[in-house]
Amino acid sequence: MTMTVLGLGAMGQALATAFVKAGLPTTVWNRSAHKAEALAGLGAVRAETVADAVREADLVVVCVLDYAAVREVLEPVAEQLSGRVLLNVTNGTAADARRLAEWASAHGVSYVDGGIMAIPQGIGRPESVILYSGSREAFDRWAVPLGAWGTGKFLGTDPGLAALHDLALLGAMYGMFAGAFHATAMAGTEGVPAERFTEDLLVPWLHSMVDVLPMLAGNTSVSEERRLVERVALTNIVSTSAAQGVPEHLIAPLRSLLDAHAEPAATA
Amino acid sequence: MTMTVLGLGAMGQALATAFVKAGLPTTVWNRSAHKAEALAGLGAVRAETVADAVREADLVVVCVLDYAAVREVLEPVAEQLSGRVLLNVTNGTAADARRLAEWASAHGVSYVDGGIMAIPQGIGRPESVILYSGSREAFDRWAVPLGAWGTGKFLGTDPGLAALHDLALLGAMYGMFAGAFHATAMAGTEGVPAERFTEDLLVPWLHSMVDVLPMLAGNTSVSEERRLVERVALTNIVSTSAAQGVPEHLIAPLRSLLDAHAEPAATA
Repeated sequence: MTMTVLGLGAMGQALATAFVKAGLPTTVWNRSAHKAEALAGLGAVRAETVADAVREADLVVVCVLDYAAVREVLEPVAEQLSGRVLLNVTNGTAADARRLAEWASAHGVSYVDGGIMAIPQGIGRPESVILYSGSREAFDRWAVPLGAWGTGKFLGTDPGLAALHDLALLGAMYGMFAGAFHATAMAGTEGVPAERFTEDLLVPWLHSMVDVLPMLAGNTSVSEERRLVERVALTNIVSTSAAQGVPEHLIAPLRSLLDAHAEPAATA
Repeated sequence: MTMTVLGLGAMGQALATAFVKAGLPTTVWNRSAHKAEALAGLGAVRAETVADAVREADLVVVCVLDYAAVREVLEPVAEQLSGRVLLNVTNGTAADARRLAEWASAHGVSYVDGGIMAIPQGIGRPESVILYSGSREAFDRWAVPLGAWGTGKFLGTDPGLAALHDLALLGAMYGMFAGAFHATAMAGTEGVPAERFTEDLLVPWLHSMVDVLPMLAGNTSVSEERRLVERVALTNIVSTSAAQGVPEHLIAPLRSLLDAHAEPAATA
């Protein structure tokens, strides 16, 4: 079982490092060759070309910036890929993943799409979740070595499912980050240091509110009292943000949404 | 030490119930009297009028919808409030709290402002945080009985500080909720039930990303690679949301913000 990692940005390096540390024979390639140096030092084989890297491996992992880069890297080596497993963990849409799966299938390549729900520093920890979809057979064959990255979850044979879930979860993260940065900026207007506010108040508060989500999931009925309370709070957040000189653009859309939902006719 | 709770919405009821359960002599009042019935059954004294309720108490807690309601409830009893402690936990802006503190001071009332960082169901648990600001002396005098609600944090003598922190943290929560609901809607377009998505993937993911916040706090330098990766992800989230028929208005502002920060000249 030999593996290749194409693309050594922060995430690609973390993925290849986890393979090497797990004792798996790993070949690496990156457009800018110097990014492969650290990995070579740890024991990875450095390939000069994508074709060399692919020839070395049963499993080819591609982790580049976007699908334009995926195609640029893979299309010239379509023939060499035949008979191997292609695991693409590049961020893309569900439609991107489905199209790439078709391309792979047309070239005799087994396709698995992956969504890495961790920051590079989290790779290798069992609490880090990696989402997979596509070829069930290929996933099952590679599930054990892929455990070097974290806990894998196979979502289904539709190759678009991992990307869809990945993007949904990333969207949730960005919403949380946006709210958190806005909050930190508001506290900052009264001289509260970001680090202290974040550690003392923000992190425990958000953990407790994340635990409220299961109670809210699927519960679409909101009492009139609750709606009034939320509207007062959002109005106060927006006006206090303005009074403190914090731009409201991350928060104002939420109030608009609440207004829209209060009058369903307006959203139709 | 006797306490009165004015306003028995979901939160006021939770606060009064926590007092009663802690064995503290508690009087309650609500505009619609029937909301006081359950509390009376637990052992609270039901006051017919605000004036009666205030006369019974050394500590007067007001928990109503907004500051218009606060003024409507308190202005007629300004004289009776004199010499007592007024603890206002109604959601309002920092400026609202400062104005009410001045009004209280002009009437010989000690003022404490409170921000309750918990849902009503969380009141009474030590992990629930209540923020306070205003009169340090009044807070110190009441800190022990107020411990019946959760863990108190005194933020300073500026009466606006609790509201500012409260609104900042609520804003963070709304950002997180917005992202979470958007994510749940995206998963829903592929038939994934909200409850399963929330419990299996969303909650563990958000917990792990909340733990990333201290690393981000105060770190304003973002690498060019990281910026590119984030832009690709946000673009994919927006386009996949559109492709799946999920409105993008909660997510699109985040991409705009990233664009704005990428070109600081454009934001000036």
